[in-house]
Amino acid sequence: MSERTLEKKMIGRPVEELPTPALVADLEALEANLTLLSGYFSGKACKLRPHFKSHKCVTLARRQLACANTVGITCAKVSEAEKLVEGGVKDVLVANQLIGRDKVRRAAALNRRATVRVAVDSAEGVRQLGKAASELEVTVGVLVEVDVGMNRCGVKPGAPSMELARLAARTRGLRFDGFQGYEGHLVTIVDAQERREKVSAALGPLLETRAELEKSGLPVAIVSSGGSGTYDITGNFAGVDELQAGSYALMDSHYKKVRAEFANARYILATVISASAGRAVCDVGLKGMGCEYGDPLVLDHPEAKTLYVAEEHLPLEGISAAVGERLRIVPPHGCTTNNLYSRMWMVRNGIIEDVWPIEGRGCLE
Amino acid sequence: MSERTLEKKMIGRPVEELPTPALVADLEALEANLTLLSGYFSGKACKLRPHFKSHKCVTLARRQLACANTVGITCAKVSEAEKLVEGGVKDVLVANQLIGRDKVRRAAALNRRATVRVAVDSAEGVRQLGKAASELEVTVGVLVEVDVGMNRCGVKPGAPSMELARLAARTRGLRFDGFQGYEGHLVTIVDAQERREKVSAALGPLLETRAELEKSGLPVAIVSSGGSGTYDITGNFAGVDELQAGSYALMDSHYKKVRAEFANARYILATVISASAGRAVCDVGLKGMGCEYGDPLVLDHPEAKTLYVAEEHLPLEGISAAVGERLRIVPPHGCTTNNLYSRMWMVRNGIIEDVWPIEGRGCLE
Repeated sequence: MSERTLEKKMIGRPVEELPTPALVADLEALEANLTLLSGYFSGKACKLRPHFKSHKCVTLARRQLACANTVGITCAKVSEAEKLVEGGVKDVLVANQLIGRDKVRRAAALNRRATVRVAVDSAEGVRQLGKAASELEVTVGVLVEVDVGMNRCGVKPGAPSMELARLAARTRGLRFDGFQGYEGHLVTIVDAQERREKVSAALGPLLETRAELEKSGLPVAIVSSGGSGTYDITGNFAGVDELQAGSYALMDSHYKKVRAEFANARYILATVISASAGRAVCDVGLKGMGCEYGDPLVLDHPEAKTLYVAEEHLPLEGISAAVGERLRIVPPHGCTTNNLYSRMWMVRNGIIEDVWPIEGRGCLE
Repeated sequence: MSERTLEKKMIGRPVEELPTPALVADLEALEANLTLLSGYFSGKACKLRPHFKSHKCVTLARRQLACANTVGITCAKVSEAEKLVEGGVKDVLVANQLIGRDKVRRAAALNRRATVRVAVDSAEGVRQLGKAASELEVTVGVLVEVDVGMNRCGVKPGAPSMELARLAARTRGLRFDGFQGYEGHLVTIVDAQERREKVSAALGPLLETRAELEKSGLPVAIVSSGGSGTYDITGNFAGVDELQAGSYALMDSHYKKVRAEFANARYILATVISASAGRAVCDVGLKGMGCEYGDPLVLDHPEAKTLYVAEEHLPLEGISAAVGERLRIVPPHGCTTNNLYSRMWMVRNGIIEDVWPIEGRGCLE
């Protein structure tokens, strides 16, 4: 049976009938998550720019964009930005450095059809992007990435960030639009008070840099920052204009510990393929679940203990289940999970309502 | 540029010109690995049945089949078996349980065009597969999976295995072909002597079960077992007919510690997108490398220390590299890495000679 034939056949059928493992999202839970976070930004200066890397699904990105208080979409790769623009999204931030002639030209070319901003953190990055933009006769908006303590990309706050901002502002083909910071090392601190204190300390220098640059006469249109774990801290921080939250939409078993107010809207439907007393082995493993951040959660059997996660198998202990039984498993890390599937089955009240392609799957470039 | 246009353009070009991250294999190293292992089985009773799940590339599977002492291909999923049969492979073992009407029918249907054996470890699995085979009027060969201590799938050696073998033998539509065991919990023990002793202890009961069943009058055509880490133990064990090695072909930074005689033929070509004194960040992370088993190895910069592996980034310390520099990175786990890419660039002496599709990418069902 072709993939399209299978999809048509399954619409209107109970989710349990899907071939497994299957990536499934509950529409009711997803919609509640979208409403909750976008509603939070009503009346606030900061607005939402959801991150595509979490789900890689253009249909879901469009749903997010249709929510209140949402200004555009964030993504991590130029190939993801291409999928978004192809899908009709008109305002995209590539929250990552693009290096290499092929990539900067692709990013610049997208600006003929949409506003596609790019993060930069080096003079070389500014030079490459500016050259591509000039050659293609477009203007590309850039955000200078500031390292707020994550120790990944970004330049130091203060003088180094301001210097790079001024270089971008005077580079032909580029438009300096502001700063990006990401407190990724703090977003999953479970203790809310500790998270608040550490995030505030990290964001301080970023916002001081903004103020100082503006005082010197260079306007800063956008400061973009934050994630699902810090929306109620970063999103209230004076001077932060956009929040790049991603995981809130579908959630995962790791993030749920930090943000219990969002529902686990995503699960993998799996089949028990082997069973003995107190043990069951499911037909999904590392190739179907991102397991960097702990153990999966077996809905309906929260007592099940993960023995280990193999490539194609999930052996569970402390569970009584028969061969052929279907289990719903919440992956530990949603972002790396969606990257493993080419489609997401959309379910309401247990019935398959739609199938959404995951266009960004494998968009590594 | 379309994917096909890019592929055509890159043939004959230096590998460094590829857009990154890119999955690359060195043909010379790969060919040496294939020759080494297939040659090992010359004059031995045991033959090689390479495992597809390690690379998911049909072209590579065909190359393996063309080697000496190689009887067929192993895979883990019925969707992988479909790709192999479509690609002309005539003898496939699905070394895994298939549960569910859709899957057993697909496996049975493949037997109209090829020999596609399936592992079973439950009466329910036997019943389902037999029913599908009968309905489609084919005969499916089955191997009863015996748990040799990995505590994943499989039934206990001795009476339970013999009982399931007899059930399979008398089930309409099925042909009992033998046993499968897999000492996956032992294949990466670094100490060779300890590995040898533990593997011998694990295989003993499997081979005793074979002998006992044959004595009782039921012939056992095939015992299939082993992996790259145990080829010179399991592959010499009297009574083992086929070895399911996979990782030896391309290797990875984890397996290399156990089997130094094989070359690391696979790497990810990445670009440094951010750099500061003693630090560099590459444009590949968890979405482009399977990192379950330790840190990646940066060829040319073995001194580089992995800080952590993010979704899209690899921050390295103790390395001096400029923005734009290309690095070759050996992934920690090859099997989950190939599952993330749709093609493998094949290189000889630094020049791209071919592009091989990874047809089995995402074959989860």
